[in-house]
Amino acid sequence: MPGPSKGSQTRQQIVDCALTIAAQDGLGALSIGRLAKELEMSKSGLFLHFGSKENLESAVVERASLHFFDHILVPIEEKGLVGIERVWALCDSWLDFVEEGILPGGYFFTGAYFQCARQSGPIPSQIKRVVRDWVHTLRQALNQARRCDEVCRSVDAEQAALELSGILIGAQWSQLIAYTEPTRSRSAILAKLRDLATEEIPTDAFASVNAWKAYLESRDH
Amino acid sequence: MPGPSKGSQTRQQIVDCALTIAAQDGLGALSIGRLAKELEMSKSGLFLHFGSKENLESAVVERASLHFFDHILVPIEEKGLVGIERVWALCDSWLDFVEEGILPGGYFFTGAYFQCARQSGPIPSQIKRVVRDWVHTLRQALNQARRCDEVCRSVDAEQAALELSGILIGAQWSQLIAYTEPTRSRSAILAKLRDLATEEIPTDAFASVNAWKAYLESRDH
Repeated sequence: MPGPSKGSQTRQQIVDCALTIAAQDGLGALSIGRLAKELEMSKSGLFLHFGSKENLESAVVERASLHFFDHILVPIEEKGLVGIERVWALCDSWLDFVEEGILPGGYFFTGAYFQCARQSGPIPSQIKRVVRDWVHTLRQALNQARRCDEVCRSVDAEQAALELSGILIGAQWSQLIAYTEPTRSRSAILAKLRDLATEEIPTDAFASVNAWKAYLESRDH
Repeated sequence: MPGPSKGSQTRQQIVDCALTIAAQDGLGALSIGRLAKELEMSKSGLFLHFGSKENLESAVVERASLHFFDHILVPIEEKGLVGIERVWALCDSWLDFVEEGILPGGYFFTGAYFQCARQSGPIPSQIKRVVRDWVHTLRQALNQARRCDEVCRSVDAEQAALELSGILIGAQWSQLIAYTEPTRSRSAILAKLRDLATEEIPTDAFASVNAWKAYLESRDH
């Protein structure tokens, strides 16, 4: 009998393998049979670890969401970014996450969301929660930027979070069709931020990604 | 033995049922077993009509693409729209298609595309072809609008087609998350068209969806 440590290690291996399959081919492509083959385990051994395909799917979505938030949020928290810089950093990191192929393809969480947005059940709910958590994070950052007078009082933070996210999703779609200059997606975000910003931020700063980075750097000094 | 007419009618029924399942739950959710149950047919009877699950999936994607292009293109062709009005009408109809839930949910063809953009094989290729055909249609309309001097010569039609599509995809995503005023998505399209248009089109026309419609009507007279 494996000890708990060995068991949790095996469980981790199973989720890793399942996440690789799901990121490329979608959760629908996960089957105990395929996993058993790839991991050279017995189907009954796999069942022992997860009990059901739904439990396995849930563990995969949880792992994917950890990758997503770890990659996007942790560096921003560590740097203690606030104001419009935080809003920018969230969008910039979201694009990094896609461009670096941390979870390759367009499935997590965009394709998965488009597929399950009108579905009910525990797995669709879990996927929708990840996407709502993202919108919530962005909305909070916008509200905070409003309080420190870098985003206009008149801005509806919920609506702005959806619009910024819409730009990101559209950029991801374009990148899947054809090579898109990474600065092009970011310029679209800057154009939107210019519309949201107060006069505290000089308009020139939004002219290009380089101008924006130079402006942020000048603030730090 | 059913005659060929009965056979093609049954085939049609099978594809209809399969399309309903796939639009809601994705192609991955299609199984001969589930279809046999919903249609009260034998699995072997289903196989007789399609030979393989892949053939059935291919027929479903083809049917979905007919819905898509029939809904979006046919009315525009019938009205013989050209120039920037044609570009607008393509985007407007795309949004109609989503908002009217002709194929409910976000799967066809957005979710499907996000899921399969990095996959190979006949079904992913077929899905990617539908999306490329859409971009191609939009690009042709932009090129035609350039030739009749309504879109600037300097515009890269391929890039503009991707950017307009990105706005549409982002709008669809927002609509799945929260109710979005239909005019909001269309205003974003108009803002982009304003950037692309020549001085032939008065800037005021892009100010709102109503202003745009009034402008188009005034051109007809």
